[in-house]
Amino acid sequence: MIVGSVVGSVVSTKKNEKLIGCKLMIVEPMEGMAGAKERLIAVDNVGAGIGEIVLVAQGSAARIGCAKETAPIDAAIVGIVDSGTGIY
Amino acid sequence: MIVGSVVGSVVSTKKNEKLIGCKLMIVEPMEGMAGAKERLIAVDNVGAGIGEIVLVAQGSAARIGCAKETAPIDAAIVGIVDSGTGIY
Amino acid sequence: MIVGSVVGSVVSTKKNEKLIGCKLMIVEPMEGMAGAKERLIAVDNVGAGIGEIVLVAQGSAARIGCAKETAPIDAAIVGIVDSGTGIY
Amino acid sequence: MIVGSVVGSVVSTKKNEKLIGCKLMIVEPMEGMAGAKERLIAVDNVGAGIGEIVLVAQGSAARIGCAKETAPIDAAIVGIVDSGTGIY
Amino acid sequence: MIVGSVVGSVVSTKKNEKLIGCKLMIVEPMEGMAGAKERLIAVDNVGAGIGEIVLVAQGSAARIGCAKETAPIDAAIVGIVDSGTGIY
Repeated sequence: MIVGSVVGSVVSTKKNEKLIGCKLMIVEPMEGMAGAKERLIAVDNVGAGIGEIVLVAQGSAARIGCAKETAPIDAAIVGIVDSGTGIY
Repeated sequence: MIVGSVVGSVVSTKKNEKLIGCKLMIVEPMEGMAGAKERLIAVDNVGAGIGEIVLVAQGSAARIGCAKETAPIDAAIVGIVDSGTGIY
Repeated sequence: MIVGSVVGSVVSTKKNEKLIGCKLMIVEPMEGMAGAKERLIAVDNVGAGIGEIVLVAQGSAARIGCAKETAPIDAAIVGIVDSGTGIY
Repeated sequence: MIVGSVVGSVVSTKKNEKLIGCKLMIVEPMEGMAGAKERLIAVDNVGAGIGEIVLVAQGSAARIGCAKETAPIDAAIVGIVDSGTGIY
Repeated sequence: MIVGSVVGSVVSTKKNEKLIGCKLMIVEPMEGMAGAKERLIAVDNVGAGIGEIVLVAQGSAARIGCAKETAPIDAAIVGIVDSGTGIY
């Protein structure tokens, strides 16, 4: 997984039907993390908001771990990092 | 997922039979996105056209999320990003 | 997927038995593509030859899409790109 | 897999329920390894502590190999590298 | 897949039990290959030794292709490249 900051969201009206109801957040991996500064789109699984520091799972873990086995999802926000954790 | 721009398409007459009928689009990830400027080929799942800004899922999510479980597909366009969304 | 050029082949006599009969081609992704100029080895699924421009699927799509579900294959040539397609 | 050093841990109170009880460690791949110096978050499967040199599996191997098939886990610490092994 | 050189091995006494009996080799992808010079750890499936040039499969192909479906393995040596093949 990587830790990143939620910096925005994406709106898509015309999309694969299995994505309906999914919040598509823009996450920027923290400095020093794999893929640092290279933004990706992750489906929110924990109620994350813009500005929060989050844990993101990628690959099949995103679909399967969020009970969206058949959705075209390759990244998901699966945790909100507690402040003061010392990662950033 | 990543957000990118559809910049072209690829024609392949001689191909794996499970790709027959698939539109193979060339997508260029947006500046600031993971893999920015590194083009990839994604199967169109939502009726995207050249010049549109799209959401692309990669890995097993592309096959499974687009009901092409047994096709050799590792990337798919799964949404069209609404204009004015503020990502670019 | 990515589009690349077939630049050679690899011979391996001592190998996993599920690879027996597989043609192992060296593919160089085209300039501008993801992984440009970083060669990879892909199993030929469509009768591609050296010098041809091909479509390569990676990850589980390579195994499953080529009906080699249990083989140690993570990349496969799944189409030959028609000349004049305008990708290169 | 890659070999890296455990450099910290992440605390997340609000997270996907399948991550409850998982120790989320920050691992920095060793110099010379794939992804060197690009930290990632891996679930501890072997009782690793900060400062130890560990083996990390990524992708579906992390979930499945650690008997967490349905958890949103894409990286796991699956071994502690013996000192004097000569990798670093 | 990629072609690389076996440059060492890793010893791990405390590890996931499904890795018991696996030889963990350090592979350095050849110059010009994807991930060139970025070492990774691959489980030996073909009796490879240090100094040999080998074919490495990554991702789920490593587990499944080597009949280690439930092990935390994301890379495996699945062939020894014949000398004189012209890849290096």
